[in-house]
Amino acid sequence: MCELLGMDCNTPTDIQFSFTGFSLRGGRTGPHGDGWGLAFFDGAAARTFLDASPCAESPLSAFVRSQPIKTLQAVAHIRKKTRGPTRLANTHPFVRELWGRNWVFAHNGTVRSLPPGPSGGRFTPVGQTDSERAFCRLMNRVARRFPTAPADPSELWTYVARVAGEIARHGTFNFLLGNGDVLFARCDTRLCFIERRAPFGRATLKDQDFSIDFGAVTTPRDRVAVVATAPLTVDEVWTHGEPGTLWVFRRGRLVATLRSGAPR
Amino acid sequence: MCELLGMDCNTPTDIQFSFTGFSLRGGRTGPHGDGWGLAFFDGAAARTFLDASPCAESPLSAFVRSQPIKTLQAVAHIRKKTRGPTRLANTHPFVRELWGRNWVFAHNGTVRSLPPGPSGGRFTPVGQTDSERAFCRLMNRVARRFPTAPADPSELWTYVARVAGEIARHGTFNFLLGNGDVLFARCDTRLCFIERRAPFGRATLKDQDFSIDFGAVTTPRDRVAVVATAPLTVDEVWTHGEPGTLWVFRRGRLVATLRSGAPR
Repeated sequence: MCELLGMDCNTPTDIQFSFTGFSLRGGRTGPHGDGWGLAFFDGAAARTFLDASPCAESPLSAFVRSQPIKTLQAVAHIRKKTRGPTRLANTHPFVRELWGRNWVFAHNGTVRSLPPGPSGGRFTPVGQTDSERAFCRLMNRVARRFPTAPADPSELWTYVARVAGEIARHGTFNFLLGNGDVLFARCDTRLCFIERRAPFGRATLKDQDFSIDFGAVTTPRDRVAVVATAPLTVDEVWTHGEPGTLWVFRRGRLVATLRSGAPR
Repeated sequence: MCELLGMDCNTPTDIQFSFTGFSLRGGRTGPHGDGWGLAFFDGAAARTFLDASPCAESPLSAFVRSQPIKTLQAVAHIRKKTRGPTRLANTHPFVRELWGRNWVFAHNGTVRSLPPGPSGGRFTPVGQTDSERAFCRLMNRVARRFPTAPADPSELWTYVARVAGEIARHGTFNFLLGNGDVLFARCDTRLCFIERRAPFGRATLKDQDFSIDFGAVTTPRDRVAVVATAPLTVDEVWTHGEPGTLWVFRRGRLVATLRSGAPR
């Protein structure tokens, strides 16, 4: 199994604090030593760092932790491989372009097969993972249903919830899917989130003796949602997901909680 | 105008030497201070480093130069903007997926408009550059003509030469287009290449007092083709392109030289 980390904000926010704790699970405080990846958005474009070496020991991961990278949305993943060897093509997050914006996807779990139905389409996996195969199926369904972005965004949200629920019947499908505008987070077995907003308090990382006073680095109108496989901090209250739920985050706020497939 | 650098090899080869000289043109020995990017392949997957700051001063560029990254194919670009502001979405190389492999594209020149003909298709620009717009047009044409990779690869090469020649009527279209299998390099006004093979000699960078003895770091069967806007070394003979030519490189070897549009 792998671990997921997502962040969605209403003001450009530094990912360093969360990524620092998260990255230690990649080979040091956790067993997820088969590569890692981080994607973050600048407008509709995603920039991605991928590495097939363990996150806790990766020079690239140290470089990323040292850089003050501010973004409105980020998706990270550390991998404990179940299918597909450790190589770049199998490293999450995966990226595709649809409607002139990048979409990034990271998965926790194993999806053994895909539901029957039209296969193929414009998106084809580059690597060998079940994860990228499921991502391409989801994107092909979305692209076929909505040749252009729907005027009512909730139509997209409902459709993603439905297709993801269908795919989830064939395995375990916790995922993060972001396009710089919305961040989808599906809880199948294990996912939690926190919305940070004023009044901001202090938070201490679970995986390292490090704490931060968010009150000192934010303004009263800032909102930041963080989603992770397991809580990253010890002194905040994280909300745990119900299996079969799709959360939709936008501008640092949970804007929808949708049923996605049958509860497990 | 921008500068291009491409490398295509028959054995995993370090890009550090060429990238070191090249990166100095991004804000130090050259005027190209509006961002830079480097993509390199691992099989069918491309890993991309993009930065909107000048290459010569970028911490990410220093990091990349410090890493022993070996690859069979790489495409790099440093930008002097002509259209579109300096931001991530406008930074080359651009990446798309077709037939289950990544395609990366970097452009030198300005293409003012696109030829008449079917617009739209599965690929849409994420940013505001004429370059990404031309790349999407080229990829949409290829995807429409070849729903799957043609059995005879030369059919693809001829088609790329033809469509690129049509686009080039509307501006200046020097580019590199790589998919990890072949590297296309189109000379419109300025592009040159060198094929390095046994017996390997010594080469000295033009932009920095640094030389390397390739004989000491290669085996007799290695082949490396390097393509650049301007020669990177002073003690090797570079072949300059004829305007309106498409070169096709594969496994470190020039495998085809095709007419691409009318000579200028």
